[in-house]
Amino acid sequence: MKLYQKHEATLQEAMQALSTRTYYTPYPENPKAYAEDADAAAKSWISAVMNNNYGALDQTETNGWLGEEVSPFLQVGIGVKYPSFSNETIIKHAIIGQHAWANTSIQQRAGLLIEALDRIKTRFFDIAYATMHTTGQAYMMSFQASGPHANDRALEAIAMGYKELSSIPEQVEWVKNFGKFDLKMNKTWKPVPKGISLVIGCSTFPVWNTVPGLFASLITGNACIVKPHPKAILPIAIVIEEMQKLFIENGLPAQVLQLAVDTLEKPITKELAENPMVKMVDFTGGSQFGNYIEQLPKTTFTEKAGVNSILLDSVNDLKAVLGNIAFSASLYSGQMCTAPQNIFISKHGVQTAEGIVTYDDVVAGIAAAISGLVDNPKAGPGTLGAIQTELTYQRIADAKNWGGKLILESKSIVNEEFKDARIATPVVIELEKTQGKVFNEECFGPIVFIIKTDGIADSLALAEALALQKGALTCGAYTTDASTKQQIASTMNNAFVPVSFNFTGAGFINSHAAFSDFHLTGGNPAGNASFANAEFVNKRFVWVGNREM
Amino acid sequence: MKLYQKHEATLQEAMQALSTRTYYTPYPENPKAYAEDADAAAKSWISAVMNNNYGALDQTETNGWLGEEVSPFLQVGIGVKYPSFSNETIIKHAIIGQHAWANTSIQQRAGLLIEALDRIKTRFFDIAYATMHTTGQAYMMSFQASGPHANDRALEAIAMGYKELSSIPEQVEWVKNFGKFDLKMNKTWKPVPKGISLVIGCSTFPVWNTVPGLFASLITGNACIVKPHPKAILPIAIVIEEMQKLFIENGLPAQVLQLAVDTLEKPITKELAENPMVKMVDFTGGSQFGNYIEQLPKTTFTEKAGVNSILLDSVNDLKAVLGNIAFSASLYSGQMCTAPQNIFISKHGVQTAEGIVTYDDVVAGIAAAISGLVDNPKAGPGTLGAIQTELTYQRIADAKNWGGKLILESKSIVNEEFKDARIATPVVIELEKTQGKVFNEECFGPIVFIIKTDGIADSLALAEALALQKGALTCGAYTTDASTKQQIASTMNNAFVPVSFNFTGAGFINSHAAFSDFHLTGGNPAGNASFANAEFVNKRFVWVGNREM
Repeated sequence: MKLYQKHEATLQEAMQALSTRTYYTPYPENPKAYAEDADAAAKSWISAVMNNNYGALDQTETNGWLGEEVSPFLQVGIGVKYPSFSNETIIKHAIIGQHAWANTSIQQRAGLLIEALDRIKTRFFDIAYATMHTTGQAYMMSFQASGPHANDRALEAIAMGYKELSSIPEQVEWVKNFGKFDLKMNKTWKPVPKGISLVIGCSTFPVWNTVPGLFASLITGNACIVKPHPKAILPIAIVIEEMQKLFIENGLPAQVLQLAVDTLEKPITKELAENPMVKMVDFTGGSQFGNYIEQLPKTTFTEKAGVNSILLDSVNDLKAVLGNIAFSASLYSGQMCTAPQNIFISKHGVQTAEGIVTYDDVVAGIAAAISGLVDNPKAGPGTLGAIQTELTYQRIADAKNWGGKLILESKSIVNEEFKDARIATPVVIELEKTQGKVFNEECFGPIVFIIKTDGIADSLALAEALALQKGALTCGAYTTDASTKQQIASTMNNAFVPVSFNFTGAGFINSHAAFSDFHLTGGNPAGNASFANAEFVNKRFVWVGNREM
Repeated sequence: MKLYQKHEATLQEAMQALSTRTYYTPYPENPKAYAEDADAAAKSWISAVMNNNYGALDQTETNGWLGEEVSPFLQVGIGVKYPSFSNETIIKHAIIGQHAWANTSIQQRAGLLIEALDRIKTRFFDIAYATMHTTGQAYMMSFQASGPHANDRALEAIAMGYKELSSIPEQVEWVKNFGKFDLKMNKTWKPVPKGISLVIGCSTFPVWNTVPGLFASLITGNACIVKPHPKAILPIAIVIEEMQKLFIENGLPAQVLQLAVDTLEKPITKELAENPMVKMVDFTGGSQFGNYIEQLPKTTFTEKAGVNSILLDSVNDLKAVLGNIAFSASLYSGQMCTAPQNIFISKHGVQTAEGIVTYDDVVAGIAAAISGLVDNPKAGPGTLGAIQTELTYQRIADAKNWGGKLILESKSIVNEEFKDARIATPVVIELEKTQGKVFNEECFGPIVFIIKTDGIADSLALAEALALQKGALTCGAYTTDASTKQQIASTMNNAFVPVSFNFTGAGFINSHAAFSDFHLTGGNPAGNASFANAEFVNKRFVWVGNREM
């Protein structure tokens, strides 16, 4: 209860933010807000960790050590090995964790979990380097996405969970008057946890995409097994290490939260997911596996692939708009689920404050804006980061052979710090609206399609059909016309896609802010869950009421 | 908005009740609280309706008339025919309804729907007679369950919907400070309805089990198609008639809510449920069809079969307890999803305030209590009602051949008002604990199994295994021992089954009160939904947010 009291104010603020949806974070996103020597210490830490066994986890009965992560910046294996276990051992331990964790009170869990975020905060710089050398994210994104922004989403899940778990009283005397007498019952309610939760991570955002489901399952009383992508284990291993330590300090078994690792060659995910003791699965990754997860006869939360569109109709300042789009498409080399892929532009061009700019000039402007960004040595490397996997790298090279017109070739640029980094700037390809076979697929990575349409209505219809069929996490729209704006909002929203209008400057369609923006809507094929609406926590426990006379 | 203002106080009270879980209803359950001539008028009404076409619905493009309802009290067809439609027509009309209804505001919907409940209230007596002559419920249950209690559950769904739909602000200015400048966005959120909703009714509670899903879908902006059981259409047809009239009066198309009827021989349910335009399905009925519904790739809400247990350990007043159990098992001839089927009793007997009563004496006491109730001409007919379907009637006759020891034979009794009623009193059969093959199946109707166990721990283990495997809606437990009580609560709650302890007098495990008791937990095989938790409404719409700079 001490931890609950310590963090009660934060919890209340977070719950308040969930209602007001205004800006809120207790975890500064600027590295300079943290200890001056933290970065240097983390550099030493990552050097020491590489090529060693990761022995900091409290998990027994290992059957060996494995690890095959490769740094996209160094293009060599980082050599970290993690303890591995049979699935039987993992489930056996999870059952122990479940029994202990289900018996904690909601306040106890809230206190422990917010304390965990404070412990994780002390490791933000370690997590940043671990993220860089597994995902290929540049330093700043690694720090922010896996550190403060991930903590924000975790706290959001805790707050949403606490709010829902507190929505029904624990006890009440119920009285019904029958005229001659009162019927009285003593009623009690409990939110009973569903049971063991499996959280499956992805290779590009191993912390940010894992912690919402993880903390949502934990606050609702469920022990968790985290199964990260075999190529991005280290960042979330740090999180799990800190949380296991905290659980043990507080008299709980470390088995409340386990790391389960595997390799690409010998995956364990399906067997774990299908185990009848596993009651819930959170998944981030490709659509094919996500669809498999969704059809399991259990509670599932998925974020799969979507194809995000930009609709370019009319603008005030075209240069500002193109600069914004160029950044959105280049950030982490387009390896974000929220990166734009398809830019729909009318063949009649784009209306600006200075008059119509022709279609060809807009297309050339997009290419120029991207070149201007990536060729700038002060901006390019830090924006692009590196390409996480060889598969994506190959896809970028292949893209020009898919039948479109090559507008801007992908190339490498120099990263002074990491000469061997796997880098690829965005490739820009022009397609006809009839080439839906190409642009209606998610082509993960820095691949930008410009689709020439008959006008904004045509653009919107194409984006809508795509969203209904393949899903989307976001949509960028540029229009100065109120009724067009209304039409876009209504059409895309009815396909359950959120729209960001007229973003320039420091606002990017890629960024969803915790406590305010829902990440995914859960309503289109891009995924069935939403960080963090009420359903994201309510589906993890069951209200059960007893009555007594 | 006038209707919203008219009903705002009721809405606020209902939302308040959902939070406090204390007793609440705006619809008195006592028929005497209504107009003196209402009952007589309803009697005339039902006479006029029988053997006629039901022409009061506002549904066009019919392809014929059909109806095959049979009164369990008269054992003759009631001769009411309803307009029938091709599924194409129903879907076409639902799309029209969906467009109109999705564009109403939340307040508009809340006002209209609570007004609808007031209109339905004027038809409570008509609905009561319609319920009697389709389900076989006795008069008082027909009035209460299909009238005020159904309205309670509908209002509960409206209130829960309104609460959740109001949980996110419509608009906010979001400001993030970057030190040198503020990033500002105008953010808006909309709860976007998922789309057309199909509500599939059952033959025993055609109104009570239909309106929760119906009103939950409507308050969240979804047009509805109600597909009642072919043998229990009339009660819900009245509800739909009143609501269609109200929609039209308020400038909305009647297609917001349609009645879709079929026959046992030519069912239309699967084709409707599988139509891609149907986004949600609510279902009450058998487990086999319910399991089919649950695996459809859409949002589903099911109440299927469960097997409810009573655990008899120790009591103060055995006579009061046995009387209570006898009533629970006899009410509406056990044709309630919340009726007890299995009574687990230790072979060592039951501890009472006057000492141990032997197992055999307790068994004899149960039989005597049931006989005392059903043989009492003032209580029997009104408690039992009639058997809804010949299938159930046959099952009761068969039960004594299932390998158990017959303790009390089922028989008919005289109902002075309805001499031809299909009546069967409860059959009581004793089984060994090894005869799970018999007692682990739902045997719908007035069939009571008494299972002789080795003690309360054994009884509890049997009830738990059954609940985990087959599901249960309720569990009755009698114990005067605090630690046994704790053990029962914890074990059954972890199987997601609510427990009613030591019910005597006017409290019955069959009754779940709206605004307080959840009907189903949604956590065990008896069904995946709960009337009405937050999930019951949240799954019917999607939060979508737009941002603008």
